[in-house]
Amino acid sequence: MNVLIVHAHHEPQSFNAAMKDLAVATLTAAGHDVVVSDLYAMGFNPVAGPADFGQRANPDYLVYALEQRNAVATDSFAPDIAAELDKLRRADFILLNFPIYWFGMPAILKGWIDRVFVSGLCYGGRRIYNRGGLAGKRAMLAFSLGGRKHMFGPGAIHGELETLLRPIEQGMLAYVGLTVLPHFAAFHVPYIGDEARGACLEGYRRHLLGLDGHAPRVFQSVEHFDEQLRPNTGA
Amino acid sequence: MNVLIVHAHHEPQSFNAAMKDLAVATLTAAGHDVVVSDLYAMGFNPVAGPADFGQRANPDYLVYALEQRNAVATDSFAPDIAAELDKLRRADFILLNFPIYWFGMPAILKGWIDRVFVSGLCYGGRRIYNRGGLAGKRAMLAFSLGGRKHMFGPGAIHGELETLLRPIEQGMLAYVGLTVLPHFAAFHVPYIGDEARGACLEGYRRHLLGLDGHAPRVFQSVEHFDEQLRPNTGA
Repeated sequence: MNVLIVHAHHEPQSFNAAMKDLAVATLTAAGHDVVVSDLYAMGFNPVAGPADFGQRANPDYLVYALEQRNAVATDSFAPDIAAELDKLRRADFILLNFPIYWFGMPAILKGWIDRVFVSGLCYGGRRIYNRGGLAGKRAMLAFSLGGRKHMFGPGAIHGELETLLRPIEQGMLAYVGLTVLPHFAAFHVPYIGDEARGACLEGYRRHLLGLDGHAPRVFQSVEHFDEQLRPNTGA
Repeated sequence: MNVLIVHAHHEPQSFNAAMKDLAVATLTAAGHDVVVSDLYAMGFNPVAGPADFGQRANPDYLVYALEQRNAVATDSFAPDIAAELDKLRRADFILLNFPIYWFGMPAILKGWIDRVFVSGLCYGGRRIYNRGGLAGKRAMLAFSLGGRKHMFGPGAIHGELETLLRPIEQGMLAYVGLTVLPHFAAFHVPYIGDEARGACLEGYRRHLLGLDGHAPRVFQSVEHFDEQLRPNTGA
Protein backbone atom coordinates (compact mmCIF):
# COMPACT_ATOMS: atom_id res chain seq x y z
CA MET A 1 0.00 0.00 0.00
CA ASN A 2 0.93 3.66 -0.30
CA VAL A 3 1.66 5.13 3.10
CA LEU A 4 1.76 8.83 3.99
CA ILE A 5 3.38 9.66 7.31
CA VAL A 6 2.81 13.21 8.51
CA HIS A 7 5.39 13.97 11.18
CA ALA A 8 5.35 17.00 13.47
CA HIS A 9 8.28 17.24 15.87
CA HIS A 10 10.94 19.96 15.97
CA GLU A 11 13.74 17.77 17.34
CA PRO A 12 15.24 15.20 14.92
CA GLN A 13 16.90 13.39 17.85
CA SER A 14 13.62 13.00 19.75
CA PHE A 15 11.89 9.78 20.69
CA ASN A 16 9.00 10.99 18.58
CA ALA A 17 11.30 11.20 15.54
CA ALA A 18 12.53 7.68 16.37
CA MET A 19 8.89 6.52 16.20
CA LYS A 20 8.61 8.08 12.76
CA ASP A 21 11.88 6.49 11.61
CA LEU A 22 10.74 3.11 12.93
CA ALA A 23 7.45 3.39 11.03
CA VAL A 24 9.31 4.24 7.82
CA ALA A 25 11.66 1.27 8.24
CA THR A 26 9.02 -1.21 9.35
CA LEU A 27 6.46 -0.36 6.69
CA THR A 28 9.10 -0.15 3.94
CA ALA A 29 10.49 -3.55 4.93
CA ALA A 30 6.94 -4.92 4.78
CA GLY A 31 6.82 -3.94 1.11
CA HIS A 32 4.89 -0.70 1.32
CA ASP A 33 5.70 2.56 -0.44
CA VAL A 34 6.25 5.20 2.25
CA VAL A 35 6.23 8.99 1.81
CA VAL A 36 6.93 11.34 4.75
CA SER A 37 5.75 14.90 5.18
CA ASP A 38 8.13 16.14 7.88
CA LEU A 39 6.32 19.38 8.66
CA TYR A 40 9.08 21.08 10.68
CA ALA A 41 11.75 20.14 8.14
CA MET A 42 9.51 21.45 5.33
CA GLY A 43 8.82 24.69 7.20
CA PHE A 44 5.15 23.95 6.61
CA ASN A 45 2.86 26.97 7.03
CA PRO A 46 -0.08 25.97 9.24
CA VAL A 47 -2.04 29.22 8.98
CA ALA A 48 -5.13 29.03 6.77
CA GLY A 49 -5.50 32.31 4.89
CA PRO A 50 -6.12 34.16 1.66
CA ALA A 51 -2.80 33.16 0.07
CA ASP A 52 -3.99 29.53 0.00
CA PHE A 53 -5.87 30.15 -3.23
CA GLY A 54 -4.41 31.02 -6.63
CA GLN A 55 -7.70 32.56 -7.67
CA ARG A 56 -10.68 33.51 -5.58
CA ALA A 57 -14.41 32.90 -6.09
CA ASN A 58 -14.93 36.02 -3.97
CA PRO A 59 -11.84 38.23 -3.70
CA ASP A 60 -13.55 40.66 -1.31
CA TYR A 61 -14.69 38.35 1.47
CA LEU A 62 -12.95 35.14 2.44
CA VAL A 63 -15.14 32.19 3.38
CA TYR A 64 -12.45 29.57 3.66
CA ALA A 65 -14.50 26.43 2.91
CA LEU A 66 -16.17 28.05 -0.11
CA GLU A 67 -12.80 29.03 -1.54
CA GLN A 68 -11.58 25.48 -0.94
CA ARG A 69 -14.48 24.16 -3.03
CA ASN A 70 -13.68 26.68 -5.75
CA ALA A 71 -10.01 25.71 -5.68
CA VAL A 72 -10.91 22.02 -6.01
CA ALA A 73 -13.09 22.84 -9.04
CA THR A 74 -10.47 25.11 -10.65
CA ASP A 75 -7.36 23.23 -9.48
CA SER A 76 -5.96 26.45 -8.05
CA PHE A 77 -4.59 25.71 -4.59
CA ALA A 78 -1.33 27.23 -3.43
CA PRO A 79 1.56 24.91 -4.37
CA ASP A 80 2.23 23.71 -0.80
CA ILE A 81 -1.39 22.60 -0.37
CA ALA A 82 -1.51 21.05 -3.86
CA ALA A 83 1.60 18.99 -3.06
CA GLU A 84 0.08 17.63 0.16
CA LEU A 85 -3.21 16.91 -1.60
CA ASP A 86 -1.35 14.83 -4.18
CA LYS A 87 0.20 12.77 -1.39
CA LEU A 88 -3.18 12.43 0.32
CA ARG A 89 -4.89 11.28 -2.88
CA ARG A 90 -2.25 8.62 -3.50
CA ALA A 91 -2.18 7.32 0.08
CA ASP A 92 -4.00 4.18 1.19
CA PHE A 93 -2.88 4.64 4.79
CA ILE A 94 -2.28 7.96 6.55
CA LEU A 95 -0.22 7.89 9.73
CA LEU A 96 -0.05 11.04 11.87
CA ASN A 97 3.03 11.00 14.13
CA PHE A 98 3.26 13.74 16.74
CA PRO A 99 3.83 14.66 20.37
CA ILE A 100 0.65 15.48 22.29
CA TYR A 101 0.55 19.22 22.95
CA TRP A 102 -2.36 20.27 25.16
CA PHE A 103 -4.30 17.05 24.64
CA GLY A 104 -4.14 17.56 20.89
CA MET A 105 -1.85 18.10 17.94
CA PRO A 106 0.94 20.67 17.72
CA ALA A 107 -0.30 23.70 15.77
CA ILE A 108 1.86 22.83 12.75
CA LEU A 109 -0.07 19.57 12.34
CA LYS A 110 -3.47 21.08 13.17
CA GLY A 111 -2.79 23.55 10.39
CA TRP A 112 -1.96 20.72 7.99
CA ILE A 113 -5.48 19.41 8.65
CA ASP A 114 -6.99 22.91 8.41
CA ARG A 115 -5.38 23.55 5.01
CA VAL A 116 -5.16 20.10 3.41
CA PHE A 117 -8.43 18.36 4.39
CA VAL A 118 -10.23 20.54 1.88
CA SER A 119 -13.95 20.93 1.46
CA GLY A 120 -15.15 19.68 -1.90
CA LEU A 121 -12.69 16.80 -1.95
CA CYS A 122 -12.45 15.41 1.59
CA TYR A 123 -15.99 16.30 2.69
CA GLY A 124 -18.98 18.48 1.89
CA GLY A 125 -22.70 18.50 2.69
CA ARG A 126 -23.68 14.93 3.57
CA ARG A 127 -20.38 13.53 2.29
CA ILE A 128 -19.12 13.04 5.83
CA TYR A 129 -18.29 10.11 8.10
CA ASN A 130 -18.84 6.83 6.23
CA ARG A 131 -19.67 8.83 3.09
CA GLY A 132 -16.65 11.13 3.44
CA GLY A 133 -14.42 11.87 0.49
CA LEU A 134 -11.52 9.77 1.78
CA ALA A 135 -13.61 6.64 2.40
CA GLY A 136 -11.68 3.48 1.59
CA LYS A 137 -8.43 4.81 3.03
CA ARG A 138 -7.20 4.04 6.55
CA ALA A 139 -5.60 6.31 9.15
CA MET A 140 -3.94 6.05 12.53
CA LEU A 141 -2.45 8.26 15.21
CA ALA A 142 0.94 7.53 16.76
CA PHE A 143 1.90 9.91 19.53
CA SER A 144 4.15 10.47 22.49
CA LEU A 145 3.13 12.26 25.65
CA GLY A 146 4.52 13.22 29.02
CA GLY A 147 1.66 11.79 31.08
CA ARG A 148 1.59 8.31 32.53
CA LYS A 149 -0.93 5.68 31.56
CA HIS A 150 -2.65 5.82 34.96
CA MET A 151 -3.52 9.49 34.37
CA PHE A 152 -6.01 8.44 31.68
CA GLY A 153 -9.16 6.35 32.01
CA PRO A 154 -12.45 6.43 33.89
CA GLY A 155 -11.89 8.27 37.18
CA ALA A 156 -8.32 9.23 36.24
CA ILE A 157 -7.17 12.82 36.56
CA HIS A 158 -7.35 13.66 32.84
CA GLY A 159 -10.30 11.38 32.01
CA GLU A 160 -10.42 8.95 29.12
CA LEU A 161 -7.83 9.27 26.36
CA GLU A 162 -10.46 8.26 23.78
CA THR A 163 -12.57 11.24 24.84
CA LEU A 164 -9.64 13.65 24.62
CA LEU A 165 -8.78 12.32 21.16
CA ARG A 166 -12.37 12.44 19.90
CA PRO A 167 -12.00 15.76 18.06
CA ILE A 168 -9.12 14.20 16.11
CA GLU A 169 -10.21 10.59 15.62
CA GLN A 170 -13.88 11.31 15.04
CA GLY A 171 -13.91 14.99 14.06
CA MET A 172 -10.99 14.94 11.61
CA LEU A 173 -10.23 11.36 10.53
CA ALA A 174 -13.62 9.60 10.62
CA TYR A 175 -15.35 12.81 9.48
CA VAL A 176 -13.66 12.63 6.06
CA GLY A 177 -14.40 8.92 5.72
CA LEU A 178 -11.09 7.49 6.89
CA THR A 179 -11.18 4.11 8.61
CA VAL A 180 -9.58 4.80 11.99
CA LEU A 181 -7.23 2.11 13.29
CA PRO A 182 -6.40 1.99 17.01
CA HIS A 183 -3.81 4.61 17.95
CA PHE A 184 -0.41 3.91 19.46
CA ALA A 185 0.43 5.92 22.58
CA ALA A 186 3.96 6.23 24.01
CA PHE A 187 3.46 7.41 27.59
CA HIS A 188 5.80 9.34 29.91
CA VAL A 189 8.42 9.66 27.19
CA PRO A 190 10.56 12.52 28.56
CA TYR A 191 11.06 10.67 31.86
CA ILE A 192 11.85 7.08 30.92
CA GLY A 193 15.22 5.41 30.35
CA ASP A 194 16.70 3.75 27.30
CA GLU A 195 15.39 0.29 28.20
CA ALA A 196 11.79 1.45 28.55
CA ARG A 197 12.12 3.44 25.34
CA GLY A 198 13.39 0.36 23.51
CA ALA A 199 10.49 -1.71 24.82
CA CYS A 200 8.07 1.01 23.75
CA LEU A 201 9.50 1.10 20.22
CA GLU A 202 9.29 -2.70 20.03
CA GLY A 203 5.61 -2.45 21.04
CA TYR A 204 5.11 0.11 18.30
CA ARG A 205 6.79 -2.14 15.73
CA ARG A 206 4.41 -4.98 16.63
CA HIS A 207 1.46 -2.57 16.46
CA LEU A 208 2.49 -1.57 12.93
CA LEU A 209 3.05 -5.16 11.78
CA GLY A 210 -0.38 -6.11 13.10
CA LEU A 211 -2.29 -3.32 11.36
CA ASP A 212 -4.52 -5.68 9.40
CA GLY A 213 -5.53 -7.46 12.58
CA HIS A 214 -6.75 -4.33 14.37
CA ALA A 215 -10.50 -3.81 14.39
CA PRO A 216 -11.19 -0.24 13.23
CA ARG A 217 -12.90 2.10 15.63
CA VAL A 218 -16.59 2.58 14.88
CA PHE A 219 -18.03 6.04 14.35
CA GLN A 220 -21.19 7.49 12.86
CA SER A 221 -23.05 6.30 9.76
CA VAL A 222 -24.83 9.02 7.83
CA GLU A 223 -27.63 6.53 7.01
CA HIS A 224 -28.82 6.86 10.61
CA PHE A 225 -29.56 10.54 10.04
CA ASP A 226 -32.02 12.37 7.80
CA GLU A 227 -31.42 15.03 5.15
CA GLN A 228 -30.90 17.67 7.87
CA LEU A 229 -28.59 15.25 9.70
CA ARG A 230 -31.15 14.78 12.47
CA PRO A 231 -31.35 11.25 13.91
CA ASN A 232 -33.69 9.05 11.86
CA THR A 233 -36.72 8.07 13.87
CA GLY A 234 -37.22 4.94 11.76
CA ALA A 235 -40.52 6.16 10.29
CA MET B 1 -11.28 43.83 35.32
CA ASN B 2 -8.51 43.44 32.76
CA VAL B 3 -9.75 41.50 29.75
CA LEU B 4 -7.61 39.78 27.12
CA ILE B 5 -9.43 38.78 23.95
CA VAL B 6 -7.49 36.45 21.68
CA HIS B 7 -9.08 36.58 18.24
CA ALA B 8 -8.31 34.16 15.40
CA HIS B 9 -10.18 34.88 12.17
CA HIS B 10 -8.65 35.84 8.82
CA GLU B 11 -11.61 37.90 7.57
CA PRO B 12 -12.18 41.30 9.27
CA GLN B 13 -15.71 41.46 7.79
CA SER B 14 -16.71 38.07 9.22
CA PHE B 15 -19.42 37.37 11.74
CA ASN B 16 -16.70 36.02 13.97
CA ALA B 17 -14.92 39.40 13.84
CA ALA B 18 -18.26 41.04 14.67
CA MET B 19 -18.44 38.86 17.78
CA LYS B 20 -14.97 40.08 18.76
CA ASP B 21 -15.94 43.72 18.12
CA LEU B 22 -19.13 43.28 20.15
CA ALA B 23 -17.16 41.84 23.07
CA VAL B 24 -14.73 44.78 22.96
CA ALA B 25 -17.58 47.31 22.92
CA THR B 26 -19.72 45.55 25.53
CA LEU B 27 -16.95 44.91 28.02
CA THR B 28 -15.42 48.38 27.55
CA ALA B 29 -18.82 50.01 28.10
CA ALA B 30 -19.17 47.93 31.28
CA GLY B 31 -16.01 49.62 32.60
CA HIS B 32 -13.45 46.95 31.89
CA ASP B 33 -10.02 47.43 30.35
CA VAL B 34 -9.89 45.37 27.15
CA VAL B 35 -6.80 44.29 25.20
CA VAL B 36 -7.08 42.31 21.94
CA SER B 37 -4.53 39.95 20.44
CA ASP B 38 -5.75 39.74 16.85
CA LEU B 39 -3.57 36.83 15.78
CA TYR B 40 -4.07 37.13 12.01
CA ALA B 41 -3.54 40.90 12.07
CA MET B 42 -0.39 40.40 14.16
CA GLY B 43 0.92 37.70 11.82
CA PHE B 44 1.35 35.57 14.93
CA ASN B 45 3.69 32.59 14.47
CA PRO B 46 1.97 29.48 15.87
CA VAL B 47 4.86 27.06 15.41
CA ALA B 48 6.66 26.10 18.62
CA GLY B 49 10.36 25.78 17.90
CA PRO B 50 13.95 26.54 18.85
CA ALA B 51 13.71 30.26 18.03
CA ASP B 52 11.25 30.67 20.92
CA PHE B 53 14.12 30.93 23.38
CA GLY B 54 16.74 33.66 23.61
CA GLN B 55 19.08 31.28 25.39
CA ARG B 56 18.92 27.54 25.77
CA ALA B 57 19.39 25.29 28.79
CA ASN B 58 20.39 22.60 26.28
CA PRO B 59 21.36 23.98 22.87
CA ASP B 60 21.88 20.49 21.41
CA TYR B 61 18.54 18.84 22.10
CA LEU B 62 15.25 20.70 22.33
CA VAL B 63 12.81 19.52 24.99
CA TYR B 64 10.25 22.28 24.61
CA ALA B 65 8.72 22.28 28.11
CA LEU B 66 12.16 22.21 29.78
CA GLU B 67 13.30 25.19 27.71
CA GLN B 68 10.08 26.98 28.67
CA ARG B 69 10.92 26.47 32.35
CA ASN B 70 14.44 27.77 31.72
CA ALA B 71 13.08 30.77 29.84
CA VAL B 72 10.70 31.59 32.73
CA ALA B 73 13.63 31.42 35.16
CA THR B 74 15.94 33.51 32.97
CA ASP B 75 13.29 35.78 31.42
CA SER B 76 14.53 34.90 27.96
CA PHE B 77 11.50 34.17 25.78
CA ALA B 78 11.35 35.39 22.20
CA PRO B 79 9.78 38.87 22.13
CA ASP B 80 6.45 37.76 20.64
CA ILE B 81 5.94 35.20 23.40
CA ALA B 82 7.08 37.64 26.09
CA ALA B 83 4.53 40.20 24.85
CA GLU B 84 1.67 37.69 25.03
CA LEU B 85 2.82 36.53 28.47
CA ASP B 86 2.65 40.11 29.72
CA LYS B 87 -0.94 40.36 28.53
CA LEU B 88 -1.76 37.00 30.08
CA ARG B 89 -0.25 37.97 33.43
CA ARG B 90 -2.25 41.20 33.55
CA ALA B 91 -5.55 39.64 32.49
CA ASP B 92 -8.30 38.75 34.93
CA PHE B 93 -10.48 37.35 32.16
CA ILE B 94 -9.28 35.62 28.99
CA LEU B 95 -11.74 35.35 26.12
CA LEU B 96 -10.82 33.15 23.15
CA ASN B 97 -12.81 34.15 20.04
CA PHE B 98 -12.52 31.86 17.02
CA PRO B 99 -14.30 29.87 14.34
CA ILE B 100 -14.43 26.13 14.98
CA TYR B 101 -12.08 24.37 12.57
CA TRP B 102 -12.26 20.60 12.76
CA PHE B 103 -14.00 20.56 16.13
CA GLY B 104 -11.21 22.66 17.58
CA MET B 105 -9.25 25.87 17.24
CA PRO B 106 -7.65 27.18 14.05
CA ALA B 107 -3.95 26.34 14.09
CA ILE B 108 -2.96 29.97 14.67
CA LEU B 109 -4.81 29.89 18.02
CA LYS B 110 -3.69 26.38 18.94
CA GLY B 111 -0.15 27.64 18.45
CA TRP B 112 -0.82 30.61 20.72
CA ILE B 113 -1.65 28.08 23.44
CA ASP B 114 1.35 25.88 22.54
CA ARG B 115 3.77 28.81 22.80
CA VAL B 116 2.23 31.10 25.44
CA PHE B 117 0.82 28.70 28.08
CA VAL B 118 4.36 28.07 29.24
CA SER B 119 5.52 25.41 31.64
CA GLY B 120 6.98 26.90 34.81
CA LEU B 121 4.48 29.74 34.87
CA CYS B 122 1.11 28.35 33.77
CA TYR B 123 1.63 24.80 35.04
CA GLY B 124 4.23 22.28 36.11
CA GLY B 125 4.31 19.06 38.13
CA ARG B 126 1.26 19.07 40.40
CA ARG B 127 0.53 22.73 39.68
CA ILE B 128 -2.35 21.80 37.40
CA TYR B 129 -6.13 22.12 37.41
CA ASN B 130 -7.26 23.91 40.58
CA ARG B 131 -3.59 24.41 41.53
CA GLY B 132 -2.61 25.66 38.08
CA GLY B 133 -0.47 28.74 37.64
CA LEU B 134 -3.33 30.88 36.33
CA ALA B 135 -5.74 30.05 39.19
CA GLY B 136 -7.85 33.05 40.14
CA LYS B 137 -8.32 34.18 36.55
CA ARG B 138 -11.39 33.32 34.45
CA ALA B 139 -11.66 32.23 30.83
CA MET B 140 -14.33 31.63 28.22
CA LEU B 141 -14.67 30.41 24.65
CA ALA B 142 -16.77 32.29 22.10
CA PHE B 143 -16.96 30.57 18.73
CA SER B 144 -18.83 30.35 15.48
CA LEU B 145 -19.41 27.14 13.55
CA GLY B 146 -21.13 25.91 10.43
CA GLY B 147 -23.06 23.11 12.10
CA ARG B 148 -26.59 23.42 13.43
CA LYS B 149 -27.49 23.02 17.07
CA HIS B 150 -29.33 19.73 16.43
CA MET B 151 -26.09 18.17 15.18
CA PHE B 152 -24.71 18.22 18.74
CA GLY B 153 -25.97 16.41 21.83
CA PRO B 154 -26.62 12.86 23.00
CA GLY B 155 -27.48 10.76 19.94
CA ALA B 156 -26.73 13.62 17.53
CA ILE B 157 -24.46 13.03 14.56
CA HIS B 158 -21.39 14.75 16.03
CA GLY B 159 -22.06 13.84 19.68
CA GLU B 160 -21.96 16.25 22.58
CA LEU B 161 -20.34 19.64 22.08
CA GLU B 162 -19.00 19.54 25.64
CA THR B 163 -17.12 16.34 24.77
CA LEU B 164 -15.67 17.79 21.59
CA LEU B 165 -14.53 20.88 23.51
CA ARG B 166 -13.05 18.91 26.41
CA PRO B 167 -9.43 19.09 25.16
CA ILE B 168 -9.79 22.88 25.14
CA GLU B 169 -11.96 23.61 28.17
CA GLN B 170 -10.46 20.98 30.43
CA GLY B 171 -7.10 20.24 28.81
CA MET B 172 -6.00 23.83 28.16
CA LEU B 173 -8.07 26.26 30.26
CA ALA B 174 -8.90 24.30 33.42
CA TYR B 175 -5.50 22.57 33.28
CA VAL B 176 -3.67 25.84 33.96
CA GLY B 177 -6.08 26.79 36.74
CA LEU B 178 -8.43 29.06 34.83
CA THR B 179 -12.04 29.17 36.00
CA VAL B 180 -13.99 28.18 32.89
CA LEU B 181 -17.21 30.09 32.26
CA PRO B 182 -19.85 28.61 29.94
CA HIS B 183 -18.93 29.09 26.29
CA PHE B 184 -20.99 30.99 23.74
CA ALA B 185 -21.68 29.12 20.47
CA ALA B 186 -22.95 30.81 17.30
CA PHE B 187 -24.34 27.96 15.17
CA HIS B 188 -24.79 27.69 11.40
CA VAL B 189 -23.20 31.09 10.84
CA PRO B 190 -22.34 30.89 7.13
CA TYR B 191 -25.92 30.00 6.25
CA ILE B 192 -28.10 32.38 8.27
CA GLY B 193 -29.49 35.79 7.28
CA ASP B 194 -28.98 39.22 8.80
CA GLU B 195 -31.92 38.93 11.19
CA ALA B 196 -30.73 35.66 12.70
CA ARG B 197 -27.20 37.07 12.92
CA GLY B 198 -28.49 40.12 14.76
CA ALA B 199 -30.40 37.93 17.20
CA CYS B 200 -27.30 35.82 17.74
CA LEU B 201 -25.16 38.88 18.51
CA GLU B 202 -27.81 40.13 20.93
CA GLY B 203 -27.71 36.75 22.66
CA TYR B 204 -23.95 37.06 22.88
CA ARG B 205 -24.23 40.58 24.36
CA ARG B 206 -26.52 39.27 27.09
CA HIS B 207 -24.15 36.35 27.71
CA LEU B 208 -21.28 38.80 28.21
CA LEU B 209 -23.28 41.10 30.49
CA GLY B 210 -24.30 38.14 32.61
CA LEU B 211 -20.79 36.76 33.13
CA ASP B 212 -20.92 37.05 36.90
CA GLY B 213 -24.15 35.09 36.99
CA HIS B 214 -22.78 32.07 35.11
CA ALA B 215 -21.82 29.08 37.25
CA PRO B 216 -18.31 28.01 36.21
CA ARG B 217 -17.84 24.55 34.80
CA VAL B 218 -16.42 22.08 37.29
CA PHE B 219 -13.27 20.13 36.50
CA GLN B 220 -10.70 18.14 38.46
CA SER B 221 -9.26 18.95 41.87
CA VAL B 222 -5.71 17.80 42.44
CA GLU B 223 -6.59 17.05 46.09
CA HIS B 224 -8.50 13.99 44.89
CA PHE B 225 -5.28 12.48 43.54
CA ASP B 226 -2.07 11.33 45.21
CA GLU B 227 1.54 12.37 44.60
CA GLN B 228 1.65 10.28 41.40
CA LEU B 229 -1.71 11.77 40.38
CA ARG B 230 -3.46 8.44 40.95
CA PRO B 231 -6.98 8.69 42.40
CA ASN B 232 -6.91 8.91 46.20
CA THR B 233 -8.46 5.87 47.76
CA GLY B 234 -9.36 7.78 50.89
CA ALA B 235 -6.91 5.83 53.07
